[in-house]
Amino acid sequence: MTYCLAIQLETGIVFASDSRTNAGADQISTYSKMYEWGVPGERQFVFLSAGNLATTQVVMTQIRRDIEQGSNPNLANVKYMSEAAEYLGSLSVRQQSQHTDQLTSGDFNPEATFIIGGQIKGEAPMVYLVYPQGNYITVPDQTPFLQIGETKYGKPILRRIIRRDTSIEDAIQCAMVSMDSTMVSNVTVGPPVELLIYTPDSLTAGRHRRFEADDPYLLSLKDAWKESLIQAVAGLPTLDIASLTPRASGQ
Amino acid sequence: MTYCLAIQLETGIVFASDSRTNAGADQISTYSKMYEWGVPGERQFVFLSAGNLATTQVVMTQIRRDIEQGSNPNLANVKYMSEAAEYLGSLSVRQQSQHTDQLTSGDFNPEATFIIGGQIKGEAPMVYLVYPQGNYITVPDQTPFLQIGETKYGKPILRRIIRRDTSIEDAIQCAMVSMDSTMVSNVTVGPPVELLIYTPDSLTAGRHRRFEADDPYLLSLKDAWKESLIQAVAGLPTLDIASLTPRASGQ
Repeated sequence: MTYCLAIQLETGIVFASDSRTNAGADQISTYSKMYEWGVPGERQFVFLSAGNLATTQVVMTQIRRDIEQGSNPNLANVKYMSEAAEYLGSLSVRQQSQHTDQLTSGDFNPEATFIIGGQIKGEAPMVYLVYPQGNYITVPDQTPFLQIGETKYGKPILRRIIRRDTSIEDAIQCAMVSMDSTMVSNVTVGPPVELLIYTPDSLTAGRHRRFEADDPYLLSLKDAWKESLIQAVAGLPTLDIASLTPRASGQ
Repeated sequence: MTYCLAIQLETGIVFASDSRTNAGADQISTYSKMYEWGVPGERQFVFLSAGNLATTQVVMTQIRRDIEQGSNPNLANVKYMSEAAEYLGSLSVRQQSQHTDQLTSGDFNPEATFIIGGQIKGEAPMVYLVYPQGNYITVPDQTPFLQIGETKYGKPILRRIIRRDTSIEDAIQCAMVSMDSTMVSNVTVGPPVELLIYTPDSLTAGRHRRFEADDPYLLSLKDAWKESLIQAVAGLPTLDIASLTPRASGQ
């Protein structure tokens, strides 16, 4: 499994991804799911991937090959971020269909889902989620984040906090709490965690960091969050238990 | 969809359930998913149900019919809580298999999952989760709660707070936050929310309350929780963004 998310703020885009992959409970590996490519001053792209590892790897390889060979389209010549999302979707669909046509067992699933974010000079920064079918969506306006993979455990904190004008610092903290909530709940999502911040109009590689499981910041965040939650729950309005009354038996 | 949970504490058992059922997006109804039956001073049972509504309703009807007819076993004559869980599981499997044998469309699913909790005189209070296959488990020791239905959104808060020695008040607040996080994230989980507290060795009907969507306590809890989370995130250790560094392009 995988958990990746991207948060689009007025002051930047926050990308985060875990690094655990699994095929069954006894075949667990560590792979980065965060890729980056750009031409400084002109264009910058960040990719997050979830789903079939072979599909995502071949897609990322093909992206580089298309750039080297000057194919049309490729990331160096697309004019719009939406064109990049469309191109990524078509590569993904092509890879998946190649392997679906093979003789495969019933539970084989070549599907992959991507997040692509970044900026092309002259355009605003954009983030898209690219579905396995190749179609794609932007971030929702009220809740400006996108998630792929194991999305449910880490969603409530994002929904409650993230708005367009949330600060980068708060969004990083939220993203890391969201990631930690997911890693705690699903053992197939795991460290290292990668974090990348893209600053609008910088048109350069984002600021990046890789957090191992024993990273002091991650550990301090985990402890502080647990402590904060205990205090937050203790500070909530208490229900008057006397307002609860027995019902007639048999209801 | 459904979300129900039970928390087993040293000082009591907290049960909570939503009331929304759906078959497709345009067939939404309100049904209680919390049932109770007991003999004061002798035995007390609480049931929570998720899954196929027809299956859960027939199972609850059959439970009452078996009591009336003095069948063997029935809830009035089982000796142990585990025997009650086993009996509930066998009723559920029997109902499901009756409808699976019919001519049914491919996406029909008669499965149902239950939580059964309570106490029989002379035994400690117990809570079980009964799977669609009829087998059952107790609450985990370190994280003494069970969930059925749409369980993921509301799990992180429970995992981080609930222990055997958590107070009833804190557990109620956690259960309601967990329920609210789920209702916010999945529109097929919805109010009214029912809450029931069973006090160990009381052997009487639990204290119960039904919260409508506009219940003042629910609304104040929701607001207070959002405010607490914002403060909790703001109070977390801030990552030094200077510790993030650009990678070479193409990684």
